[in-house]
Amino acid sequence: MVDPANTVGIPVNPTPLLKDELDIVIPTIRNLDFLEMWRPFLQPYHLIIVQDGDPTKKIHVPEGYDYELYNRNDINRILGPKASCISFKDSACRCFGYMVSKKKYIFTIDDDCFVAKDPAGKAVNALEQHIKNLLCPSTPLFFNTLYDPYREGADFVRGYPFSLREGVTTAVSHGLWLNIPDYDAPTQLVKPKERNTRYVDAVMTIPKGTLFPMCGMNLAFDRDLIGPAMYFGLMGDGQPIGRYDDMWAGWCIKVICDHLGLGVKTGLPYIYHSKASNPFVNLKKEYKGIFWQEEIIPFFQNAKLSKEATTVQQCYIELSKMVKEKLSSLDPYFDKLADAMVTWIEAWDELNPPAAAAANGKA
Amino acid sequence: MVDPANTVGIPVNPTPLLKDELDIVIPTIRNLDFLEMWRPFLQPYHLIIVQDGDPTKKIHVPEGYDYELYNRNDINRILGPKASCISFKDSACRCFGYMVSKKKYIFTIDDDCFVAKDPAGKAVNALEQHIKNLLCPSTPLFFNTLYDPYREGADFVRGYPFSLREGVTTAVSHGLWLNIPDYDAPTQLVKPKERNTRYVDAVMTIPKGTLFPMCGMNLAFDRDLIGPAMYFGLMGDGQPIGRYDDMWAGWCIKVICDHLGLGVKTGLPYIYHSKASNPFVNLKKEYKGIFWQEEIIPFFQNAKLSKEATTVQQCYIELSKMVKEKLSSLDPYFDKLADAMVTWIEAWDELNPPAAAAANGKA
Repeated sequence: MVDPANTVGIPVNPTPLLKDELDIVIPTIRNLDFLEMWRPFLQPYHLIIVQDGDPTKKIHVPEGYDYELYNRNDINRILGPKASCISFKDSACRCFGYMVSKKKYIFTIDDDCFVAKDPAGKAVNALEQHIKNLLCPSTPLFFNTLYDPYREGADFVRGYPFSLREGVTTAVSHGLWLNIPDYDAPTQLVKPKERNTRYVDAVMTIPKGTLFPMCGMNLAFDRDLIGPAMYFGLMGDGQPIGRYDDMWAGWCIKVICDHLGLGVKTGLPYIYHSKASNPFVNLKKEYKGIFWQEEIIPFFQNAKLSKEATTVQQCYIELSKMVKEKLSSLDPYFDKLADAMVTWIEAWDELNPPAAAAANGKA
Repeated sequence: MVDPANTVGIPVNPTPLLKDELDIVIPTIRNLDFLEMWRPFLQPYHLIIVQDGDPTKKIHVPEGYDYELYNRNDINRILGPKASCISFKDSACRCFGYMVSKKKYIFTIDDDCFVAKDPAGKAVNALEQHIKNLLCPSTPLFFNTLYDPYREGADFVRGYPFSLREGVTTAVSHGLWLNIPDYDAPTQLVKPKERNTRYVDAVMTIPKGTLFPMCGMNLAFDRDLIGPAMYFGLMGDGQPIGRYDDMWAGWCIKVICDHLGLGVKTGLPYIYHSKASNPFVNLKKEYKGIFWQEEIIPFFQNAKLSKEATTVQQCYIELSKMVKEKLSSLDPYFDKLADAMVTWIEAWDELNPPAAAAANGKA
């Protein structure tokens, strides 16, 4: 079965997985021409576009895509004073899309990400792989040396405890990037020509107790399970820091997933990242994060949530209190951020009232 | 430069890495014809062959290899009463080879392991990759999503703390297997035809605090850094358990590496594992381990070594005391095993006196 709109010759999956249960969230300041290449894989899904920057600018979305679009005026109108928790002039604004979605799953992708090819030259359906990752369990409690044991042709190796072979529910699927790797400004400056050409054919669970640098460029998650913790913080306009939005979310979700017994995977799928951002601009955005992270990471490594925290919201509020208590001494910014974390949860609950959440199987 | 003895047409590395600092340990009960295929890669190195079973049997070693061979009579003669800690009729006997070596590095390989090919069809020099793994640092304190950051074409990704980018010294390199995967008897029985054909082009550090199932089939380590903990336990003849020798060593070395700040890597290199062992025989050897491991693994996950334990020997003696105290209730076997752990350390120190160790840079 070939979609007549499929002009790039990529075979179309006749029954897109989770078509009515997943939203694709895209933060952007430009026309979304990159979606042309994704048409065979993404067109069946609903898009939530979060327009950053000038709200009077008209964003062009390729024909045939079903979407809703929010600009800054919409965010201010919908959230009122709580809109202060949503970043402006930074891709951190994408998390507004997570909040307004009503679906169980989210896939978020940057507008400079194209379809990658696997070593056999086949176009990679990134979303399909993310869905596979989310729908099969994770194994955070013991390491499997042959990677994802649930994958075809693989299993648990000798010595893997049988009691742990059912795994835990997966909440997050973190995909990788061919071509331009996700480096910080100093590494970009030192290695301007480095390109990632290594396709590592593996999906793995990040072990319990281990933090990782989560990149928001190619990311999927179960909104019901972890959505309220996927806050991308205060970045960009009026803030002393940028490019740490996804990192912040990654530290928070990992601590909370570990506490709640949920899994986080990384590896496949790859996207093709086309465009290196300007390392000088990046350095300006990042430099505070580069030294702050030296204290933030030990903070998250040692963060212990209480037994009373049994929902994501409760965990996140506990975390916000710890941020205020332990990180405010680093910079007044963290006091503001801790408050924004609370505002975010309030806004989330307002847009996702418990009744609706319960009906959605979230309570 | 082509070695005239190289009959399989694999190019020879003109300057073998660490030629005088590494021993290859092979446990066997048969002629070592498998070494023919390895000649281009392994012939420059010294072999320590540990002959298991009937000591009167003559083991044939392909011509041109430099080796020393120990059978049970030799082990008994060299260790006297302490020979009781070395297993008989089980490949666990290989650890005797670690003890008699005088080199800094060990590579151990089973005699049913052949040279694997990478996806481009090139023969994999497993030892060379192990040496690369051992000579470059590990990153157990934070996860790098692009795998080994020290590899060519890779680096630390955005958000990786700069203070952790020097990594820690690597003590262990765990390689994988194409063709016959290292499955337990139940999995072998359920999936008799499963073969591993997925070549995952990655090396990764096993995070601090995470245990893994270490397989002894294709393994290298720094003997000076971790040797005394590489004890393969009491298995086989006269013991209630087999096929858990490498698992036992893996749990012990991981806890000790985490305590001492050393790294453990897994992934490349692959070997081609030719022969599935009999699952019925394996089930008989494994069945106690299969339920014991449900208690042993939590034991190791919670094992905390004291600050006073600063050498591998001290750590290992502490661990032996914990085994006696916490696991003896599981089965009297663990009482015996705890004693054997102490005997092993005594024998190790006898064959590797501190003075010689100091001269070797070990003190």
